[in-house]
Amino acid sequence: MGPQHVTPEVADVLRACDYVVAADKGDNDGLLAARRVVAGAYGVELVAVTDPERDRSDPVDYPAAVREWHEARVAAYETVLRERGGEAAFLVWGDPSLYDSTIRIVEELATRLPLDYDVLPGISAPQLLAARHRIVLHPVGAPVHITTARRLRDDVSAGQTNLLVMLTSSLDLAGLEDWTIWWGANLGTPSEELVAGRVGEVLSELGAARARAKESAGWVMDVHLLRAPA
Amino acid sequence: MGPQHVTPEVADVLRACDYVVAADKGDNDGLLAARRVVAGAYGVELVAVTDPERDRSDPVDYPAAVREWHEARVAAYETVLRERGGEAAFLVWGDPSLYDSTIRIVEELATRLPLDYDVLPGISAPQLLAARHRIVLHPVGAPVHITTARRLRDDVSAGQTNLLVMLTSSLDLAGLEDWTIWWGANLGTPSEELVAGRVGEVLSELGAARARAKESAGWVMDVHLLRAPA
Repeated sequence: MGPQHVTPEVADVLRACDYVVAADKGDNDGLLAARRVVAGAYGVELVAVTDPERDRSDPVDYPAAVREWHEARVAAYETVLRERGGEAAFLVWGDPSLYDSTIRIVEELATRLPLDYDVLPGISAPQLLAARHRIVLHPVGAPVHITTARRLRDDVSAGQTNLLVMLTSSLDLAGLEDWTIWWGANLGTPSEELVAGRVGEVLSELGAARARAKESAGWVMDVHLLRAPA
Repeated sequence: MGPQHVTPEVADVLRACDYVVAADKGDNDGLLAARRVVAGAYGVELVAVTDPERDRSDPVDYPAAVREWHEARVAAYETVLRERGGEAAFLVWGDPSLYDSTIRIVEELATRLPLDYDVLPGISAPQLLAARHRIVLHPVGAPVHITTARRLRDDVSAGQTNLLVMLTSSLDLAGLEDWTIWWGANLGTPSEELVAGRVGEVLSELGAARARAKESAGWVMDVHLLRAPA
């Protein structure tokens, strides 16, 4: 995702709105910097909203941890919208339809403030992954199971053989050495990295590429497609 | 999908290429007309390639039927590229990563002609579906199982509870009356239709909306998200 992926539909909205709000995750927030570039390209002010700390200590009750963090974010955005008024745009990194909380935040804001909103689609990481590797995400006529790194093991145990995995905090591919992986990090940015091959053969290359993306950008967001041997 | 969704990255390529190739599926091909609008907006010629007939009589060996049709398409495109030369662009309807044969066609062409190619991502129907209904495609942290209408029953039997269904030729939702559906047809075009609700309550509305889209455009392409009761 970068300025080259902002659709004319989104560009028109950015030009017409009063400001863009974006989460500021603290020191050296590379994703915030990337959003600044997009907002700047359309001459609209970016209002950075300090992102609350997220408690990542209790992976057992993941939905509850997300809910609490979500509530703190909503309160922060509510303050900005009340103070500023006008037409605000939220710039999502990728597409808002996958593993992103922006829509839930806006729905909650709409219960607290008089506001109406639209959602506009954007290019997502899975699409960039497929484009860069010049692949279709599935064998002919077969499904794509989009899931999270947290659920990968369960979904493989349940028989899934073609998985698009998001929200990776670290790559654990033990036991999947014979599978094929198509991997990408920081897609669409200058720190983009790509690796593809048999898992067992590319593991060290993958680790090095992931470290390189993080070193280069200060952050790493990756996505991978895993396919069982035919 | 429409001109409002052509990214700057794709726009630059359209302006720089010599021509666009697109399948012509015969009388009144609405998707071809939509591609003509996009090509025209960037001042590039569209070369229509007559699409071979597809044998839909044998659903048992689906991959074989697709392969045969695919070979005939490749031969048709090969003729055009040999005669014309230069830089050609294929305009995919949506994103080339899901249930689209363009990449396979280009791969096969690359074994017959000296050519190099890139793949660029585009806004896909599932993203437009989610945006129009202002939803995320999954419950918090849960998977999205992207599948085809042909496979829907098997995937539901296997325990999937959140399915994004593509390649619908007709809607068969019997037994899923308690599920929630978010449905869209001809998304991003003037004949767009949207319906959402409990399956059992919106079936007739859905049928009417699907007929309206087809009547209005001369074609209908729809996609739906189905979610089991919590």
